[in-house]
Amino acid sequence: MRLSRYFLPVMKESPADAQIVSHKLMLRAGLIRQTAAGIYAWLPLGTRVLARIAEIVRQEQDRAGAIELLMPTLQSADLWRQSGRYDAYGPEMLRISDRHEREMLYGPTNEEMITALFRDGARSYRDLPRTLYHIQWKFRDEVRPRFGVMRGREFLMKDAYSFDIDEAGARHSYNRMFVAYLNTFARMGLRAIPMQADTGPIGGDLSHEFIVLAPTGESDVFYHANWERPAELSAVDFDDVAGLQAIVSGYTADYAATDEKRDPAREAEAGDALRQSRGVEVGHIFYFGTKYSEPMGLRIQGQDGGEIVPHMGSYGIGVSRLMGAIIEASHDERGIIWPDAVAPYAVGLINMRADDAACTGAADGLYADLRAAGVEVLYDDRDERGGAKFATMDLIGLPWQIIVGPKGLEKGVVELKRRATGKRIELAPQEAVAKVTAA
Amino acid sequence: MRLSRYFLPVMKESPADAQIVSHKLMLRAGLIRQTAAGIYAWLPLGTRVLARIAEIVRQEQDRAGAIELLMPTLQSADLWRQSGRYDAYGPEMLRISDRHEREMLYGPTNEEMITALFRDGARSYRDLPRTLYHIQWKFRDEVRPRFGVMRGREFLMKDAYSFDIDEAGARHSYNRMFVAYLNTFARMGLRAIPMQADTGPIGGDLSHEFIVLAPTGESDVFYHANWERPAELSAVDFDDVAGLQAIVSGYTADYAATDEKRDPAREAEAGDALRQSRGVEVGHIFYFGTKYSEPMGLRIQGQDGGEIVPHMGSYGIGVSRLMGAIIEASHDERGIIWPDAVAPYAVGLINMRADDAACTGAADGLYADLRAAGVEVLYDDRDERGGAKFATMDLIGLPWQIIVGPKGLEKGVVELKRRATGKRIELAPQEAVAKVTAA
Repeated sequence: MRLSRYFLPVMKESPADAQIVSHKLMLRAGLIRQTAAGIYAWLPLGTRVLARIAEIVRQEQDRAGAIELLMPTLQSADLWRQSGRYDAYGPEMLRISDRHEREMLYGPTNEEMITALFRDGARSYRDLPRTLYHIQWKFRDEVRPRFGVMRGREFLMKDAYSFDIDEAGARHSYNRMFVAYLNTFARMGLRAIPMQADTGPIGGDLSHEFIVLAPTGESDVFYHANWERPAELSAVDFDDVAGLQAIVSGYTADYAATDEKRDPAREAEAGDALRQSRGVEVGHIFYFGTKYSEPMGLRIQGQDGGEIVPHMGSYGIGVSRLMGAIIEASHDERGIIWPDAVAPYAVGLINMRADDAACTGAADGLYADLRAAGVEVLYDDRDERGGAKFATMDLIGLPWQIIVGPKGLEKGVVELKRRATGKRIELAPQEAVAKVTAA
Repeated sequence: MRLSRYFLPVMKESPADAQIVSHKLMLRAGLIRQTAAGIYAWLPLGTRVLARIAEIVRQEQDRAGAIELLMPTLQSADLWRQSGRYDAYGPEMLRISDRHEREMLYGPTNEEMITALFRDGARSYRDLPRTLYHIQWKFRDEVRPRFGVMRGREFLMKDAYSFDIDEAGARHSYNRMFVAYLNTFARMGLRAIPMQADTGPIGGDLSHEFIVLAPTGESDVFYHANWERPAELSAVDFDDVAGLQAIVSGYTADYAATDEKRDPAREAEAGDALRQSRGVEVGHIFYFGTKYSEPMGLRIQGQDGGEIVPHMGSYGIGVSRLMGAIIEASHDERGIIWPDAVAPYAVGLINMRADDAACTGAADGLYADLRAAGVEVLYDDRDERGGAKFATMDLIGLPWQIIVGPKGLEKGVVELKRRATGKRIELAPQEAVAKVTAA
């Protein structure tokens, strides 16, 4: 994409109302704009990152055996009366009347709707187990939205729901999501620690929050130093019940707890290895048995002819919030440093002298070569000062920069810069193409 | 995907409340379920088709130079007061009060929001021209929702908005979208005819509706027989102003009009070549000058230092509605016939005898080989009668079926069936893989 044809409204100054670094940088780097309290438009660069994050979430859900569907944003109040939550849910639920005065709501979550869909579509034990998920906009009417997309009102969430024949099956479905979550966050360059958590308004008795460490996080967290090892992907057979349980048990052996769930005995045991930080919740998983299937009349015919009331769990990832969490975890004083997997473009190509035919010819050639090699490039072809171009590229944080200037071209070289380290090397244009293509 | 692990609730009977064939088939084939009046959940198979359609729309928008962003579903009433439309818009606008009694609405369209975003982000003539688009859920509170996703209340729409320096520029942006639309619908196997149209509540003085011919369509349309030629893709340089105008002029030379826009003179001229049919609107494009930029104070600094009030257009495609339109145009008495480009899976693999080791071995092997070749397969590995499996495969309409049965295997062959023609051939399993991979 040529910047001369793009829409990238960057800001020099941090907006006064932005308190945390991710909110400031998302506004400054032209990723988002607020359109109402706690509601944001995703500008073109932000839209690309959001799609990258959603796609990683999707791939890891699919790999774990979950099946994608898509539920609507608006729901009928009657559905929520079946579970008893319509009156119980607080003012964070946005309640709506349509033109016929029917009571509706903007879904804050989808336990009721998925239970009704499964009740309609599943007949026998052969339809179990299943885990269904969607990636859809939700709305929670926060009394005081803040921190940009970290605590917005309209937000993009992946929510999955599992249906199992019994508690043991549900535990396996829970473990599938547990490992899928570790892999999902690791692919985004994040170390997310699963912590025992309260179940809150979802209900149930088994729950983990996945928390990314960040000094600007919303809550205090306590964990064993073992968690400071870098995140790794687990190569997993998701059908291997015992193998998956062993992975989950291995991870949860190391202490990690939110403020509400601290355990003095285990903290004493950790001793010098106990760490304290602040954290951002990016995922939350729950097992809640028959809390929804029972009152909503979800019954499945068992193999022996008897009735099964499926055991359920639900599993959320804050897709839009993750963009903020990634920036909190990966930035410096000049701007964002995107992990490669979620970067909106892999390469920022800078033409230092758009008024110089040699520079423009070389930069145009590189742009064509990079695209032909399948590399996604944002090409700063504008007639602007070099200093402003450098500042913009550092601010928006693409992993690689290729800089084409008149002095280098005289020597037959361009500069390749890695945003994360700031390291620059000079090399022939074709070597730069080869290097970013191989990366 | 193995059907034994999928969620595909098909129905044998047509639901009583479904009046048109696409609505019946979408329910029967397990693509959608109604969750409230005019609101649908997209089941796994429907979700895949919806994603395919959206991706074709996206690719053709990108090819035409439009830039993707993503605006929220909820908007503030104040934004709509700036254009004067808040009070003018009828009861189809879903109006909402949040917990602080702020007036909001579920966006039925986004002219106001995009104008505000562009006003915030664009500074000079260098920021023109631009066309920005998003693919997002909309809500229109239809008084009597019907025909399934064809006239639902919550629906997925692609809406693009162009900003140009003057009317001539805006005409070129309009032509870009005109040609992009022809290509978009042609890729989905649809012949969509652009017809002069009323501009309605969007306003403006130049507008075309893109209409797919279907006997069950909502409106009467009249057109020259030349439009019956199959749709073709145009290989286009979207920056070529005169070339694009020539393409648009060529297409619009043939008469085509909706009921409100009939032209007796041109119909007389068409003579025997005049055709009448019913049609489904799948796209609508508008040029409306400064109708929003003027009242909303969108001003751009011109090259000469003067002020430009950009000329705008808007361009919609009914993404979710397209699924209904495609089915209206492509089905038979046994079910849906998906065009290859939007099919949820390319191949349906049927194991006729899940209780037979040879059949299951061969079918499992084909499943692995097809996936290794990058073909998307829905594998009916269930222990069901062959007749039921055939009926389900025909109903859901995947382009190819591969049928593995004991008699064929004795001869070393499987059957390959093309859903559209019903033609079956016997061939070795590896030839079947090669055939569908090449397709």
